[in-house]
Amino acid sequence: MSRPSSWNRREVMQLGLAAGAWAAWPGPSSRASERVTSSSQAAEERLVLFQGDSITDAGRDRQRRGGNDPRAFGFGYAFLAGAAMLAALPDKGLRVYNRGVSGNKVPDLDRRWEPDALNMKPDILSILIGVNDIWHKLGGNYDGTVEQYEQGFVALLARTREALPEVQLVVCEPFVLRCGAVTDKWFPEFDQRRASARRVAEQAGAKWVPFQSVFDVAIKQAPPEYWAGDGVHPSMAGHALMAQTWLETVDPFAG
Amino acid sequence: MSRPSSWNRREVMQLGLAAGAWAAWPGPSSRASERVTSSSQAAEERLVLFQGDSITDAGRDRQRRGGNDPRAFGFGYAFLAGAAMLAALPDKGLRVYNRGVSGNKVPDLDRRWEPDALNMKPDILSILIGVNDIWHKLGGNYDGTVEQYEQGFVALLARTREALPEVQLVVCEPFVLRCGAVTDKWFPEFDQRRASARRVAEQAGAKWVPFQSVFDVAIKQAPPEYWAGDGVHPSMAGHALMAQTWLETVDPFAG
Repeated sequence: MSRPSSWNRREVMQLGLAAGAWAAWPGPSSRASERVTSSSQAAEERLVLFQGDSITDAGRDRQRRGGNDPRAFGFGYAFLAGAAMLAALPDKGLRVYNRGVSGNKVPDLDRRWEPDALNMKPDILSILIGVNDIWHKLGGNYDGTVEQYEQGFVALLARTREALPEVQLVVCEPFVLRCGAVTDKWFPEFDQRRASARRVAEQAGAKWVPFQSVFDVAIKQAPPEYWAGDGVHPSMAGHALMAQTWLETVDPFAG
Repeated sequence: MSRPSSWNRREVMQLGLAAGAWAAWPGPSSRASERVTSSSQAAEERLVLFQGDSITDAGRDRQRRGGNDPRAFGFGYAFLAGAAMLAALPDKGLRVYNRGVSGNKVPDLDRRWEPDALNMKPDILSILIGVNDIWHKLGGNYDGTVEQYEQGFVALLARTREALPEVQLVVCEPFVLRCGAVTDKWFPEFDQRRASARRVAEQAGAKWVPFQSVFDVAIKQAPPEYWAGDGVHPSMAGHALMAQTWLETVDPFAG
């Protein structure tokens, strides 16, 4: 396992990895030496909220609503990224929440957006949504088109920006791996939906977390099943790769 | 949040951190460029086993016995370190298991050691044990002395080494934070037990993961309660700090 001192950005770029992929996990803030004498609580709270579907939900206990509560997080990238943030930024007054709900599509987020996002007043709001919008359609349980996905997502973020002008939006790239439930039937529509999500992110001034790009590289190192058995829900390895990518891309509260 | 390129080892040392503490999380293996063309499964399996008490157990589902199963891990450092390993070393055939059991002391490990450790034939066996050995004694439910802790721990590792001559042993430093349940009554006996564990590690040729040293630095950045509310069971932040420390110290399958 490499150490920071031997980690070589050029080497990573040679692998053709997207910027931000395969990032090392956070060490101490570069300003840690300024902080070490202070053990006071942070003056203000900063709230990080993960939103999405089952990939974000990851089996969390939905009866637990508090921040920074491991049992409220499930076993996914939100827990892994949240824990790393809390360790790396102990003086930032971070409160991290997971409100992903299995099975959700864009319209489902829209329906529960007021209690589960807007009223929480997050400083950083991360959204991963899209795989059910196509999966349920392929299964005959939904009829939303690509255009409806994009329009609904645009409207959701516009509504969010209006309620929370200062929020830092993060849009995560929907992704699948070609194994398990993911057959040729998913394409090219899935790629169209990825392109939609990217346009939505750009239009909203959101950070873009390139999960699909990262998994496309990862499958050169281990088979798709290693990263997500059914092609949709990541393994431990897949979730850890997502968390690393999220942290490196979002770079929460940098500077 | 710092990036590897800005991570500064000297800066960390200035904080008085023990070697290995505050490590950046794993990036790609330095040999990743050799691996990227290979998507074959690893030729052999390598088994990593976490053993200990409730800190290791961390609420895991004990009905689930499989490796690399997130729901079998609980919400602790074993999950965080395991996930990071699986992402960083996708071609090593890693199988990671958690067999920590809440409330365990050294004699409890000894009783379940054959099915829960020896028969599993781990390549890396990590053990964190000791806090209940004193806690239960302070509570009047146990009468084991410091000497009995050390002798029992020595015997456990000798038995392990005899059954598994090639195993890489990892002994984690028992730790407490001075808050919650941890009162002055715990000292100096707790420090004596830490010293015992360290002697046990050295005698067995085990790697030593300096959790107490790391938490002693961490409490300069945020109060003890931030890292472990009751002084014994780590928060998300505390578990993430442990996982980082474990990974940097153990450096699994380096080279």
